Amino acid sequence: MPIEKIAISSSGKTYYIRNVHEDLHTKDGFLKKDDLENAKNGTLLRSNTGVEFFVFDPALADIYKRISRGPQIIPRKDLGFIAAETGMNKESIVLDAGTGSGAAACFFGMIAKEVFTYELREDFLAIAEKNIELMGLKNIMLKLGNVYEKIEEKELDIIVLDLPEPWLAVGNAFSALKAGGFLVAYSPTTPQVQDFVIEVSKHSSLMVIKVVEISEREWEVKERKVRPKSQAIGHSGFIVIARKLSS
Amino acid sequence: MPIEKIAISSSGKTYYIRNVHEDLHTKDGFLKKDDLENAKNGTLLRSNTGVEFFVFDPALADIYKRISRGPQIIPRKDLGFIAAETGMNKESIVLDAGTGSGAAACFFGMIAKEVFTYELREDFLAIAEKNIELMGLKNIMLKLGNVYEKIEEKELDIIVLDLPEPWLAVGNAFSALKAGGFLVAYSPTTPQVQDFVIEVSKHSSLMVIKVVEISEREWEVKERKVRPKSQAIGHSGFIVIARKLSS
Amino acid sequence: MPIEKIAISSSGKTYYIRNVHEDLHTKDGFLKKDDLENAKNGTLLRSNTGVEFFVFDPALADIYKRISRGPQIIPRKDLGFIAAETGMNKESIVLDAGTGSGAAACFFGMIAKEVFTYELREDFLAIAEKNIELMGLKNIMLKLGNVYEKIEEKELDIIVLDLPEPWLAVGNAFSALKAGGFLVAYSPTTPQVQDFVIEVSKHSSLMVIKVVEISEREWEVKERKVRPKSQAIGHSGFIVIARKLSS
Amino acid sequence: MPIEKIAISSSGKTYYIRNVHEDLHTKDGFLKKDDLENAKNGTLLRSNTGVEFFVFDPALADIYKRISRGPQIIPRKDLGFIAAETGMNKESIVLDAGTGSGAAACFFGMIAKEVFTYELREDFLAIAEKNIELMGLKNIMLKLGNVYEKIEEKELDIIVLDLPEPWLAVGNAFSALKAGGFLVAYSPTTPQVQDFVIEVSKHSSLMVIKVVEISEREWEVKERKVRPKSQAIGHSGFIVIARKLSS
Repeated sequence: MPIEKIAISSSGKTYYIRNVHEDLHTKDGFLKKDDLENAKNGTLLRSNTGVEFFVFDPALADIYKRISRGPQIIPRKDLGFIAAETGMNKESIVLDAGTGSGAAACFFGMIAKEVFTYELREDFLAIAEKNIELMGLKNIMLKLGNVYEKIEEKELDIIVLDLPEPWLAVGNAFSALKAGGFLVAYSPTTPQVQDFVIEVSKHSSLMVIKVVEISEREWEVKERKVRPKSQAIGHSGFIVIARKLSS
Repeated sequence: MPIEKIAISSSGKTYYIRNVHEDLHTKDGFLKKDDLENAKNGTLLRSNTGVEFFVFDPALADIYKRISRGPQIIPRKDLGFIAAETGMNKESIVLDAGTGSGAAACFFGMIAKEVFTYELREDFLAIAEKNIELMGLKNIMLKLGNVYEKIEEKELDIIVLDLPEPWLAVGNAFSALKAGGFLVAYSPTTPQVQDFVIEVSKHSSLMVIKVVEISEREWEVKERKVRPKSQAIGHSGFIVIARKLSS
Repeated sequence: MPIEKIAISSSGKTYYIRNVHEDLHTKDGFLKKDDLENAKNGTLLRSNTGVEFFVFDPALADIYKRISRGPQIIPRKDLGFIAAETGMNKESIVLDAGTGSGAAACFFGMIAKEVFTYELREDFLAIAEKNIELMGLKNIMLKLGNVYEKIEEKELDIIVLDLPEPWLAVGNAFSALKAGGFLVAYSPTTPQVQDFVIEVSKHSSLMVIKVVEISEREWEVKERKVRPKSQAIGHSGFIVIARKLSS
Repeated sequence: MPIEKIAISSSGKTYYIRNVHEDLHTKDGFLKKDDLENAKNGTLLRSNTGVEFFVFDPALADIYKRISRGPQIIPRKDLGFIAAETGMNKESIVLDAGTGSGAAACFFGMIAKEVFTYELREDFLAIAEKNIELMGLKNIMLKLGNVYEKIEEKELDIIVLDLPEPWLAVGNAFSALKAGGFLVAYSPTTPQVQDFVIEVSKHSSLMVIKVVEISEREWEVKERKVRPKSQAIGHSGFIVIARKLSS
């Protein structure tokens, strides 16, 4: 069932409404179904306890936020960087592995023409399928399979590996990329980065472009209280960007 | 004249070839026009001094890199973050100001459906026009105008302000956004961030979602030499993301 | 009562023992008073449940760790930086304000010849006095007073202001410093930094040397799990270092 | 020859004067020897071209800055952190290896009771000796020797290894430390950190307390231009702090 409306309370809490024909119960009181049914994009409603709620049609950003929770998800700061560095665009054919909950595939699916996403576990594919449906994306191909063993696609623009041993997929990824295509590995630890770079270096037509960490630091800005937040966002992963230079 | 081919030397230096019917002179010798004319995507050529060059069709990532040089350009790490946080996608209608060389507009144009870009100076618009042509993008509307005074578009999904006084555009931006739309300001200094946040806070239907800095740290990975690079990439700008919650 | 022994369990938990003539109860069982009484520096004891404890004489580092808990304390990374930048040494005469729990004064007291520490509140001075006693330091002068109004000392080498409005103390600090002496302000927010720098700039013989933030990033290193810790240490404060150049 | 005076021009440039009986030539004109001879601490002089110079007696911070130039030196941010974490104080007996130019030994010598510093190369020891003399420090013992092979001292409080293969010194360092003492390794790369931690872990009485990176970020603060400096200070080294828990 899709998300029909988003309600954000004046305190900043977000609610995802799947059925506007039911009352919405929140910790700040409830919103009546009659009000929800009639709400247009941007309507201001009041709960029974008088708290204001902004109600609007969900943007993809809202649904994506909803499906991309959890510790194993690549954060947006890193996905945005990968898209930016590889020049991902409306013509791009992208492959990602492993699928997990499908969040990265959905992210790429918002930007790219077509996304192939490989996953070993059927239970994860089922979760991913629901998330893709929630996002309303039609350009994502779920594939049960192991990229360490085989990649069926050819002439891909971008491959993103979020796997424990990305070096095991380098050979298959190389064959599946077109000349000029990008191979990206996302890994939390430095020994993984080392082993991936060593494997990439064995291919004379693959070149490591960049190894980076992206940090996001949030600030508090309220009158004179202008300062980085006390709690920083910690480490997520290193991004290795390699490129196939010759076919 | 478009970029016809990219040549990357084995030492990692990139050359943008606009005319394959001429010899390409590099600091590692020259590539013959006959070879360049016949090169397919991913062909390996050798210069007269024996240096290897990979020759391939330019990806948008290559052309973007070419046009986005210079100190005033928003770095890719920040553009990627803005796109990721706002959920920019193939259906998005985006406005950015000021255009400058058009790099940000081109970046958004790779992802979004349509981009309106406002610039005060005609000479900058002329540069931007050439860059957009080089990128081959058809969905960017160049507009001579001042967003402090007027924004003609309505129901926009995302507005990105890269201006010295973004707070002067908040009122017009608010009117131009649809409910649920995002207003982003990019500013190098904290007093600019403060003033923008103060102005946003005057609108009860605008909510500051996040104030962040994105840092990119590059690593060196060569055998046992695994370490952050000595020269870090410095500060570029603070990103304020606000949202219009009600119409 | 001083800390007589430190016990560190094999799981890394630290216990501060003030009375070796009593059993020590821990969440890993208890250590017998007979064993504690006879323990030398570095003795290995076992609790009644078989857990190993290393028992040793407290170093100043241990006692300092004990007294420097709490959110309002300047972290060691910042105190170490202040000492390093000002060249604090065995001959230095240092003043700090406000005293708070006395942690910063104790830190400087470990290094400097003499420390004067100003505090408005008598209850804080009482806490500080106990902490100084615990550290066994004899070179710290507790002073009830307000540096915004008066500093009695002259020819000081270093003044460190950890106060909400450090700019109000600039004039007095200037008079109290010797030529070549350092004036340091520690502030969590950028507007405080701005106002302090503006005030310093009014004195032609005071020069701002540096405005910095010091970040500490902890790593996890266990076999192949080599990575920055997920939870980063957040922002504490900005350090402004100014210098008096002429008398 | 010691440094007799420091002159800082109003533009912030520092000059180290070894002979006040000679004119000082600067890029902002020259200061007359008569003026220099008569200058007291904090005297304001004017060059022949009218530029102001503050002249004062050198603080240890000034001389230390002078001797600690060069890429191989441990930066002050890191030395300050090491001193702070180990609780280095006026009673501490410290050992450092290798000496290099002696900068770290001088830094520790300003704080500790006694510093033993080991160096393999006689030419480096000669440079270090001059720097120690310049600092006027009497508590530093220069030792020609290799800590991988032997450490003669016993019951040390703190050992700091700034060596390419610090793991080779762990056994000797362990024997030389007192129970409760600290063993610190400073290394630029992660594989060095891994190998040091592995070696430390083989000793059941050594415990790794912390692996950290310290970053220093400088800010620009001029009226409304409040922002991190464009050029960040890059990576220097990782600090591993271990402790000997039992004798």
